[in-house]
Amino acid sequence: MSGPSLTEYLKGHTLRIEKELASSLPERWDVPGPLRESMAYSLMAGGKRMRPILTIAAAEACGGSAEAAIPVACAVEMIHTYSLIHDDLPALDNDDYRRGRLTSHKVFGEATAILAGDALLTHAFYSAARSAREHGIAADTVLSIIEELSYYAGPRGMVGGQVADMQGEQGLTRLEELDYIHTHKTSDLIVFSLKAGGRIGGATERQLDALELFGTNIGLAFQIQDDILDIVGDEKKLGKAVRSDEKQQKVTYPYFIGLERSRDKVASLTELGKEAIVNADFPQPDMLLQLADYLMKRDH
Amino acid sequence: MSGPSLTEYLKGHTLRIEKELASSLPERWDVPGPLRESMAYSLMAGGKRMRPILTIAAAEACGGSAEAAIPVACAVEMIHTYSLIHDDLPALDNDDYRRGRLTSHKVFGEATAILAGDALLTHAFYSAARSAREHGIAADTVLSIIEELSYYAGPRGMVGGQVADMQGEQGLTRLEELDYIHTHKTSDLIVFSLKAGGRIGGATERQLDALELFGTNIGLAFQIQDDILDIVGDEKKLGKAVRSDEKQQKVTYPYFIGLERSRDKVASLTELGKEAIVNADFPQPDMLLQLADYLMKRDH
Repeated sequence: MSGPSLTEYLKGHTLRIEKELASSLPERWDVPGPLRESMAYSLMAGGKRMRPILTIAAAEACGGSAEAAIPVACAVEMIHTYSLIHDDLPALDNDDYRRGRLTSHKVFGEATAILAGDALLTHAFYSAARSAREHGIAADTVLSIIEELSYYAGPRGMVGGQVADMQGEQGLTRLEELDYIHTHKTSDLIVFSLKAGGRIGGATERQLDALELFGTNIGLAFQIQDDILDIVGDEKKLGKAVRSDEKQQKVTYPYFIGLERSRDKVASLTELGKEAIVNADFPQPDMLLQLADYLMKRDH
Repeated sequence: MSGPSLTEYLKGHTLRIEKELASSLPERWDVPGPLRESMAYSLMAGGKRMRPILTIAAAEACGGSAEAAIPVACAVEMIHTYSLIHDDLPALDNDDYRRGRLTSHKVFGEATAILAGDALLTHAFYSAARSAREHGIAADTVLSIIEELSYYAGPRGMVGGQVADMQGEQGLTRLEELDYIHTHKTSDLIVFSLKAGGRIGGATERQLDALELFGTNIGLAFQIQDDILDIVGDEKKLGKAVRSDEKQQKVTYPYFIGLERSRDKVASLTELGKEAIVNADFPQPDMLLQLADYLMKRDH
């Protein structure tokens, strides 16, 4: 293979995405100071940038360019960021820290945190919409991407998963309920990230289906790995307290099927996901496959 | 004139919009119960439906059809509704009643109210995006509408106005600051409603500019009228307590320039707005002009 190593790939694309995110609210725009600061504070808080990298990797897997995928990649990260800000609010998870830093409402107050989330959610659609104008992507392709973003991030997608999660805190009794939460709260936005990248890269219908299957599987694997790391992870690497699920009496995959079987599940879901990609004749599938393994083996 | 009277027009279109809003979350969709209920509770809470009616009226003024404008009209109402839900939250205005009914967080709790707002905001983009598929509007027209929705409802628009309003509670000293708040918090979404309708109806650039000017002026007039009604209005007609601005020590137009000059300002802004429409050769401008007068004279 002549391409970059996975480490170089992640580093390069993370830098590119962060540069773009940093300039997503130009100084010349007339935005109230506290709103701009609170949006930037959460948007530039680091993190793995997994979703935007998946968007870029899916575009490249289809033979498309990373540059054309950047505005939609940023849109995904804005949606993810807003969901974390609202998730951390006192009325929801009431978290004071995220990635080792104070959460938005602890720094800017609750009202500004709510509005910063609203602004990032709205601005995500602006970022996605401008791909057409700035990168010459066909208007109907961008429109399909926007329709899917509103689907996967909306009431039938991520927000639905969030509400189900909240209700579930009163006690889940079946693994299917947990799957519903994981699928919508976590996998849906990952599926979107991949399919949107695919659309930008010119994916065939068959490749879009493969990206959806890949996303559903690695998304669930990702979330189960999160559950596992909450038990066996290193607080310093994670940037947050471990054993929080147990303390909050949160029902997780290890709770239902134990730690070992949870690990097996992560591995088998990852394999299933990779298989879907391998069977769909992508011109350059390597990075997607490597990313799946990387996510499975991560320790933070 | 052979068209319907304004009263018939408002009644007919309000019914049509409410029917569409009621079916905007089909039963067959897999949405958690509390999320569906909280979204419907606020979406079906009545109100003037002013913004969606302006969208339809603008489409018709250009010679377009009301039907083609319905999905975008609903999108505007979803954005408006989400903004009210979040605005009423304890961390923001902390209002228990809206339109004579308990606010969302009083009925469903704060967490669900926050998420219902997020879901409506996201679903608005879904509603707008599907105009292309369901009404055959050109993809690049719908994309322009979506880009403008994210602009006028986002950090440079409505959310920016909201944050400025919150900061202003610590005391505004200049009328320009109040204009900034009114323009962004109220006029921006009205301007969007009109321009989006215009785009659907096939407006020329000159007509879009006229709709923008019309919206900016009647939007500000609408907000000043709100300030006036808070002083002289009838609680029963308004469905909320009057004198709330005074109690909250909120700086308003009447505070700065007095009641009489505020009334004159409403009248002169309305005239300016109507003039812009009259001068832009719309095939059917009558209803837009009548709506401007109606909004100026409203008592609720």
